[in-house]
Amino acid sequence: MDLRIVIMAGGSGTRFWPLSRQKEPKQFLPIISEKTMIEETISRLLPRIPISNISTIANSQQTEMIKRLLPEIPEKNLLVEPQGKNTAPSLMLATAQVYLQNPKAIVAALPADHLIQDSSLFLRRLEAAAAAASSGQHLITFGVPPTYPATGYGYIQFTVENPLRFGEEPFHPVQQFKEKPDLKQAEAFLERGNYYWNSGMFLWQAEVFADKLKQHAPSLFPSWQRILEAMRDTNESRLASVFEEIPSISIDYALMEKAEGTLMGKGDFGWSDVGSWSSLLDIWPQDGQGNALKGETATLDTRRCLVYNPHKFTALIGVQDLIIVDTEDALLIAHKDQDQRVKDVIELLKQKGKKEYL
Amino acid sequence: MDLRIVIMAGGSGTRFWPLSRQKEPKQFLPIISEKTMIEETISRLLPRIPISNISTIANSQQTEMIKRLLPEIPEKNLLVEPQGKNTAPSLMLATAQVYLQNPKAIVAALPADHLIQDSSLFLRRLEAAAAAASSGQHLITFGVPPTYPATGYGYIQFTVENPLRFGEEPFHPVQQFKEKPDLKQAEAFLERGNYYWNSGMFLWQAEVFADKLKQHAPSLFPSWQRILEAMRDTNESRLASVFEEIPSISIDYALMEKAEGTLMGKGDFGWSDVGSWSSLLDIWPQDGQGNALKGETATLDTRRCLVYNPHKFTALIGVQDLIIVDTEDALLIAHKDQDQRVKDVIELLKQKGKKEYL
Repeated sequence: MDLRIVIMAGGSGTRFWPLSRQKEPKQFLPIISEKTMIEETISRLLPRIPISNISTIANSQQTEMIKRLLPEIPEKNLLVEPQGKNTAPSLMLATAQVYLQNPKAIVAALPADHLIQDSSLFLRRLEAAAAAASSGQHLITFGVPPTYPATGYGYIQFTVENPLRFGEEPFHPVQQFKEKPDLKQAEAFLERGNYYWNSGMFLWQAEVFADKLKQHAPSLFPSWQRILEAMRDTNESRLASVFEEIPSISIDYALMEKAEGTLMGKGDFGWSDVGSWSSLLDIWPQDGQGNALKGETATLDTRRCLVYNPHKFTALIGVQDLIIVDTEDALLIAHKDQDQRVKDVIELLKQKGKKEYL
Repeated sequence: MDLRIVIMAGGSGTRFWPLSRQKEPKQFLPIISEKTMIEETISRLLPRIPISNISTIANSQQTEMIKRLLPEIPEKNLLVEPQGKNTAPSLMLATAQVYLQNPKAIVAALPADHLIQDSSLFLRRLEAAAAAASSGQHLITFGVPPTYPATGYGYIQFTVENPLRFGEEPFHPVQQFKEKPDLKQAEAFLERGNYYWNSGMFLWQAEVFADKLKQHAPSLFPSWQRILEAMRDTNESRLASVFEEIPSISIDYALMEKAEGTLMGKGDFGWSDVGSWSSLLDIWPQDGQGNALKGETATLDTRRCLVYNPHKFTALIGVQDLIIVDTEDALLIAHKDQDQRVKDVIELLKQKGKKEYL
């Protein structure tokens, strides 16, 4: 089977400010280990996927960083988005490139900045999902069994009975994609049991992707065709202008939510989208008081604090539930339940014209 | 009247760690204004005291810093302690130098690292105290009217009735010096009304100091005499060996608590010993939420926090009652009611041999 991995590395998140900056989003940060998240993402694949089958898609600046971090990826596999857009245009571009080489090839679209704790289980599930994708008219997605009623993820409602099996793995027919719910809804989803988190990882056969676009996203299909033409002609400027006209929407919204016959594999491999600093409290090793500490630290009477300060000494005295991130030019201290408000800080910095901190 | 000021600049406090370090104690830090505390202490005197009448006493390293900060002080006024000791040996040395020039001169011993908010009232009180000291056999001290039942200060119990008056200022006979009390005692002191905080500022006529030593600290008197002899002979090594044999005790303990006839002036000039980071919460200007901030800062839903981070941007989200001090190599975050525990951090650093942070 011809399995091609597309690493979506174009994100520009701000939720890890002040460590993440416009020029250095989360996928380029060493927040899970000593390696950056994109390096982790790729090295997790290498036991089963040859590097020649791994592509990335990102803007030109990000692609330069990828080159530096991962010089082993063949240059032709580094797809450059003509401009930063959402996942629908990116994946149309990436899938078109594969399609022109082999329409029967399977594309696995994986975010560059997710955590997967059990790599070998992930690879097994991935190969089964690739088998499912090559079996016919199915788009494949991974649903993560929820561990709490999260309101920060979308959900996938699926049919529990009679899953299809590929490589002994069950794949469940998807009933519906659900937007991020409120807490009450999320609690109801957990109670019903057939709602998993949408992990944002997808697989499809290149020609099935084309068929599904034609059928369920007809407004995008002409762009798809023009992408193929521009690529065949290696006409970069035409490619850029086609890309520009595609609306900046997610692949979930553009296609996955609308397509029929989608199957969901079980993403029970220790997945997290590592959505904010506080998510690392559950990921980094903790001391006996629930503190997760990167950097030389002394804690007195301190509980449930996260410290990222690898180059300095940090002393904490009598504090609880704090996110503490110290960088060369900025310091963040936030209550762990309010760390998503770093976006308000960034808004404030923009308003004040403090570009140096963005 | 020949009034000589002796600035006690030899302290080596650690309570402002990580800003204060062994080599840079509080008196050399710009924590009250843009100027260091010792510069503030001296510039507050200059409207009434000629610089030639101002001396400092400190160790040799500290004296080098004083030279750099305050080159206008005559070199002969920079007394170097042969070794770091407590205030009794320092003030014996400083008073002996004055005594040899003029036994009738008044010595005012002032700490280098205290805050006085009303300088002109202070100068008026200081001159009245000098008049009181030249009136006869009195040691003079300043008592600060307490504003809360502090357990971090010693107290001076005094006679309210029939104060002596100098320059229209009342000076009350001291009944007793009291060590730092517990909270219950402190509350009782405040209720009784005739207990003021011991400010650690003292005045005496040089020859009265000698008499009082002879009378109330007879074990120290031979050292006093040998200091005078060594100074007369400008024999530095003899001076150092006399200094070495004096026990490392405070002038309060050595003399003030034992002497009779001591008078207390009213230290109602906005005094604070600025004993810890949290004391600055009441000294620095506050924003509408009770935050005191040095450095560029954004605060969201944040109350009663103190930030010292003059060279970086600080963002605070959803936090309260924190002391935050960021320096080049260390970061402190402490609950404001526990900031005195920085000494435990320093103990820990010593134990671990982390000298670079001390």
